[in-house]
Amino acid sequence: MKENIINLACDLIQRPSISPHDQGCQQLIAQRLEKLGFSIEWLPFNDTLNLWAKHGDAAPVVAFAGHTDVVPVGDENQWQYPPFSAQIVDDMLYGRGAADMKGSLAAMVVAAEEYVKTYPNHQGTIALLITSDEEASAKDGTVKVVETLMARGENIDYCLVGEPSSAVSLGDTVKNGRRGSITANLYIQGIQGHVAYPHLAENPVHKALSFLTELTSYQWDQGNEFFPPTSLQIANIQAGTGSNNVIPAQLYVQFNLRYCTEVTDEIIKQKIAEMLKKHDLKYHIEWNLSGKPFLTRPGKLVNAVTDSLHQILAITPKLDTGGGTSDGRFIALMGTEVVELGPLNSTIHKVNECVSCTDLGRLGKIYMQMLSNLFHSSKDHISEV
Amino acid sequence: MKENIINLACDLIQRPSISPHDQGCQQLIAQRLEKLGFSIEWLPFNDTLNLWAKHGDAAPVVAFAGHTDVVPVGDENQWQYPPFSAQIVDDMLYGRGAADMKGSLAAMVVAAEEYVKTYPNHQGTIALLITSDEEASAKDGTVKVVETLMARGENIDYCLVGEPSSAVSLGDTVKNGRRGSITANLYIQGIQGHVAYPHLAENPVHKALSFLTELTSYQWDQGNEFFPPTSLQIANIQAGTGSNNVIPAQLYVQFNLRYCTEVTDEIIKQKIAEMLKKHDLKYHIEWNLSGKPFLTRPGKLVNAVTDSLHQILAITPKLDTGGGTSDGRFIALMGTEVVELGPLNSTIHKVNECVSCTDLGRLGKIYMQMLSNLFHSSKDHISEV
Repeated sequence: MKENIINLACDLIQRPSISPHDQGCQQLIAQRLEKLGFSIEWLPFNDTLNLWAKHGDAAPVVAFAGHTDVVPVGDENQWQYPPFSAQIVDDMLYGRGAADMKGSLAAMVVAAEEYVKTYPNHQGTIALLITSDEEASAKDGTVKVVETLMARGENIDYCLVGEPSSAVSLGDTVKNGRRGSITANLYIQGIQGHVAYPHLAENPVHKALSFLTELTSYQWDQGNEFFPPTSLQIANIQAGTGSNNVIPAQLYVQFNLRYCTEVTDEIIKQKIAEMLKKHDLKYHIEWNLSGKPFLTRPGKLVNAVTDSLHQILAITPKLDTGGGTSDGRFIALMGTEVVELGPLNSTIHKVNECVSCTDLGRLGKIYMQMLSNLFHSSKDHISEV
Repeated sequence: MKENIINLACDLIQRPSISPHDQGCQQLIAQRLEKLGFSIEWLPFNDTLNLWAKHGDAAPVVAFAGHTDVVPVGDENQWQYPPFSAQIVDDMLYGRGAADMKGSLAAMVVAAEEYVKTYPNHQGTIALLITSDEEASAKDGTVKVVETLMARGENIDYCLVGEPSSAVSLGDTVKNGRRGSITANLYIQGIQGHVAYPHLAENPVHKALSFLTELTSYQWDQGNEFFPPTSLQIANIQAGTGSNNVIPAQLYVQFNLRYCTEVTDEIIKQKIAEMLKKHDLKYHIEWNLSGKPFLTRPGKLVNAVTDSLHQILAITPKLDTGGGTSDGRFIALMGTEVVELGPLNSTIHKVNECVSCTDLGRLGKIYMQMLSNLFHSSKDHISEV
């Protein structure tokens, strides 16, 4: 199984599929799955290719979700091995996408194949949802597939996203939710004028300071059992004409909140409108919601995954909701239980991205054991398969 | 006298002498003065032309100071008359530089000519210091002439700068000083990071807010008899990479102070260093002193000017030190008594800049009366000349 996973991972890494380009990765996967009786559905949207493959047609539907696209390589000269050469040195497979997430993508494909070979008449449905744009705008990827499935009444009950969730050792962390992310573009109006005549002008920077102080020190919540507290960061700020003798007409502030399930985007917008009013500011604000928070409470899926980690690696993972967003936020909109489990994330998006071959082999077993735990019972131990 | 002034003003306006270009204005003036026995000295520095003309060689030296350069015209389509056509309509002379300051420049040239014609053996020295860069960088203009004069031990005792000082009616305001101007470029250091992991970063915008609040609310002084209170304005502020998920590494803030004689640039620098330290900021600061404040207390020059306004217009001017900087700041470094008196400033630097022809005629008389008051006594009434 390990060799099969590594071979597929190398095949995928050798395709330079920088977002939103798939470069034949999905075709390769679809051909393999089709041979084993999976139904193949292509759901392309604009420049993004999406694959929806299924085996079986009963409930529950268990899906693996992943992406074939990778981030750019940066300065290629800094790579020890060419980023699309998929070089293996001392058990480490090097290449852009090795850890995020062509390695775990290969592991989930092989796990699905092996499970179907072993249990051709398995319960439920095994599905794969694969996109070619998770890293860039993500506008025509998983979110559109989810909309399509929902529009025709199709559902996913349990979903494992193969994002690199592990911190120090494989399986130490399972993400069972993500914070929401919302960005505000705020324009505070003043009155332009000459610095020598401040009484004829109104400096929007001066006027905004008390508001910005409250905005950045406000305690939204304390977090909860599953989430860290909501946090706000000013990402961009700009005012001024470039001249040292002109009081600026406008201050632009862009801030982003990573928020937990203790607040909602509506509560955030309303509270900030109140603050702006309290500080007597003339303003215009534009909100951009990247994703609401989602949470998969300990239950059938979390148990199936933590049990499989215990069975294969004899470890108990930490459940975590920190970090950035992933496509899990779109899948969770269907009411699906969603968790993320993948390899170590210490080299992702960096030069010399790499993944342990041993870990990829183990990951395949963990994914297969998870299927077994969901369809049968956790008493079947997949390592004997 | 009025017609003579207006003709010269038109000749000057028709030369499009946008800073630092003189376009022959000074040559025109020098030729006229030379005919009347003025010594002519050219003091060019880089792209700036400067004229130092004198009649007489005794003390006291009374100088008129002015500039031939003008600011750009802006959108030419918005001008009622072409900006370099010097059109006269209903007693108003229109054109770029009409009020700032080719009109008063013409008035001071004609006043000097008339005075020398009337009193060829006048006491003291009558001088004109004319530059072609007051509006732009001003680095190679009056400041360099002053340095040259000081280096050879030459002095100016009294100086009238023809900047448009009048607010509502001619001569209502005489500037007898100017505030100092100092600009800081402040760079506050943080630690860049991902907005989802604020504990691994340090947002310099958040960190700077308490400092900026103190900076902008600090009361430097109450001003004094001659000066309004010192004031500080943030002119430019910038932080951020443009991305909404990156905590910026650095915050840039540029602020300018217009300060009175109750503080010094050293006191300002020291106090702001204390504030930065108190708020525990990592920073780099660069200071740029544009001009120290100067003040000409009521005395011989102020009396000569206010008397002349009383004699010619029967008004008592207001002494004022507000507004922006002028070349007076450089001349004052010589220990010279300096005042500014010129036409209405309501249209300067705007489209349709204009000046009243009647006012230009009166201004010539006022300047001539001032010479008389300084050299003889205020009992000679110049309107009879």
